[in-house]
Amino acid sequence: MAGTVTVPGASVPSTPLLKDELDIVIPTIRNLDFLEMWRPFFQPYHLIIVQDGDPTKTIKVPEGFDYELYNRNDINRILGPKASCISFKDSACRCFGYMVSKKKYIYTIDDDCFVAKDPTGKDINALEQHIKNLLSPSTPFFFNTLYDPYREGADFVRGYPFSLREGAHTAVSHGLWLNIPDYDAPTQLVKPKERNERYVDAVMTIPKGTLFPMCGMNLAFDRDLIGPAMYFGLMGDGQPIGRYDDMWAGWCVKVICDHLSLGVKTGLPYIWHSKASNPFVNLKKEYKGIFWQEDIIPFFQNVTIPKECDTVQKCYIYLSGQVKEKLGKIDPYFTKLADAMVTWIEAWDELNPTAAATENGKAK
Amino acid sequence: MAGTVTVPGASVPSTPLLKDELDIVIPTIRNLDFLEMWRPFFQPYHLIIVQDGDPTKTIKVPEGFDYELYNRNDINRILGPKASCISFKDSACRCFGYMVSKKKYIYTIDDDCFVAKDPTGKDINALEQHIKNLLSPSTPFFFNTLYDPYREGADFVRGYPFSLREGAHTAVSHGLWLNIPDYDAPTQLVKPKERNERYVDAVMTIPKGTLFPMCGMNLAFDRDLIGPAMYFGLMGDGQPIGRYDDMWAGWCVKVICDHLSLGVKTGLPYIWHSKASNPFVNLKKEYKGIFWQEDIIPFFQNVTIPKECDTVQKCYIYLSGQVKEKLGKIDPYFTKLADAMVTWIEAWDELNPTAAATENGKAK
Repeated sequence: MAGTVTVPGASVPSTPLLKDELDIVIPTIRNLDFLEMWRPFFQPYHLIIVQDGDPTKTIKVPEGFDYELYNRNDINRILGPKASCISFKDSACRCFGYMVSKKKYIYTIDDDCFVAKDPTGKDINALEQHIKNLLSPSTPFFFNTLYDPYREGADFVRGYPFSLREGAHTAVSHGLWLNIPDYDAPTQLVKPKERNERYVDAVMTIPKGTLFPMCGMNLAFDRDLIGPAMYFGLMGDGQPIGRYDDMWAGWCVKVICDHLSLGVKTGLPYIWHSKASNPFVNLKKEYKGIFWQEDIIPFFQNVTIPKECDTVQKCYIYLSGQVKEKLGKIDPYFTKLADAMVTWIEAWDELNPTAAATENGKAK
Repeated sequence: MAGTVTVPGASVPSTPLLKDELDIVIPTIRNLDFLEMWRPFFQPYHLIIVQDGDPTKTIKVPEGFDYELYNRNDINRILGPKASCISFKDSACRCFGYMVSKKKYIYTIDDDCFVAKDPTGKDINALEQHIKNLLSPSTPFFFNTLYDPYREGADFVRGYPFSLREGAHTAVSHGLWLNIPDYDAPTQLVKPKERNERYVDAVMTIPKGTLFPMCGMNLAFDRDLIGPAMYFGLMGDGQPIGRYDDMWAGWCVKVICDHLSLGVKTGLPYIWHSKASNPFVNLKKEYKGIFWQEDIIPFFQNVTIPKECDTVQKCYIYLSGQVKEKLGKIDPYFTKLADAMVTWIEAWDELNPTAAATENGKAK
């Protein structure tokens, strides 16, 4: 009964999927040699490179790639005083790339993520799998035990209500990591040698009402559907916390997707995460988050967005008010973050005036 | 940070796990030749065979198995008038076996389910995997993107709240099927040749608040934690519906597990489902369910069990009242089913007096 998305079978399609509708956003502080490995898959696409740290440094990009690059001076120039909402000295700065993109889809990847191999030894075209995930529906309202029902060779199992088999539009595709798993500092410290060697051949929809830890390393999304909620918060320089940028975005995104009946998927594709970050440095960045998170999660589990909020922007502004009211009590940081969330939306609408005009960016 | 359950690594452990604490329940109408294939894995355990259909027929069980067998005459004799709650001419009769068992754990399997092979070609000890699933915690309150965090080589990822890492007790382990997938009649008719050939190496917790289609073919559970909710309803002879026995049980079980903070897992182990049932016969059994289900699912999604219901029995009796009130309007069948749910609990408590006395069977 389920339709399957028609996608060329080869891992390097002759006409790359969504070639003119997708930007690849890469935050970095170093030369982008890692792109050599991704050349067969990324070269047809446009890259948006967000250079973090010292803006006088020159970032080398391998020849043949089509890219635009923004450093801190560019961000300050483009956003003016609103640049305060974009983190500095933290990969959270990547969300500036989501804002300046004019495409419908975004794929973002870290520069320490290499091409992984599937169990047959074949290079995994992560981007192609993300696109398949985004172009086929999600199933947030009921669980399918045989995983993605839209995949070839699979379907909805007995007992799955027929009225729910159309699924929902997919807003987010969260990919995973072989080799170095995305562990927090305490787990890194306790299990320094643990590697993820298990390839799980599945794509799952994260059910409605369930929160998850969204990692920004290997992530794709539909900018039209959820872009304005993909704010990576205030991290790094001058902030009391780091390494919660993607988590924060993920929690905001998930409650808004649930409210707007949009789907969030996780699973395939894998990338090869090449190196573990320093657990001592990470602990310093994370430790407040480890405490705060115990209040943040119940906050997001219990927040109810009012019906009137029918656009991502309206949902996000509502969330920012709740963050100020409910989480502001924990630490003044959250008051600052709530204000930055509003600034982010203002900046987004300024840079994306058409979308803002079209029913204030209402998901089409 | 996560503990792993210590379990012998070999697929045929020298001392079988939970040998004296688990019964294998098999509903059947034919000789149990299929047990030959399962001998290395099942022989150490006690079997409860529930013979469906003509009680004068003799069911042959391969030599060397330790079993008790109940036919319809036995069920009528043991339960008296309460036998009306046990279905006839339908594999739903298997739940009688759950009731007469005196063990803590149940594994139930259909007689057309054979031993499957993992991708390395090794026979899968399905029972051992179910036991591992039941003995390790579940994670119903937050989603872990690297799947089961208690498995060796895995853990909770960054952003998973530390306060939730203890998890919840696991009440149910739902296994999957290679070869013939568990499809409904319409899907069978449309895709007669579809086979499930994909081995997904994962065990997932089904998040709190999410319903799923529970299949009874390859299922294990903790009788002490959830047994009284594992009622497979009124199906088959004299009933307007079939093939919704396990689904019904699954929906009741899931809302009660959610209420009592118990976990439900799905994924590994796979069995080899040898043959598809007749789709025309199935359509006749299912078609009312296909309609009714559209009301049943919202009913279960919206039902809220009151706090006072602190035992499975109390939850189940409450549910039966709601079924009568809310679903009775759809068809008189649901009024009959609601009454049978009460009879089932009465019969359960009669056959399990100690559990009933211990705080009315409160989950320990």
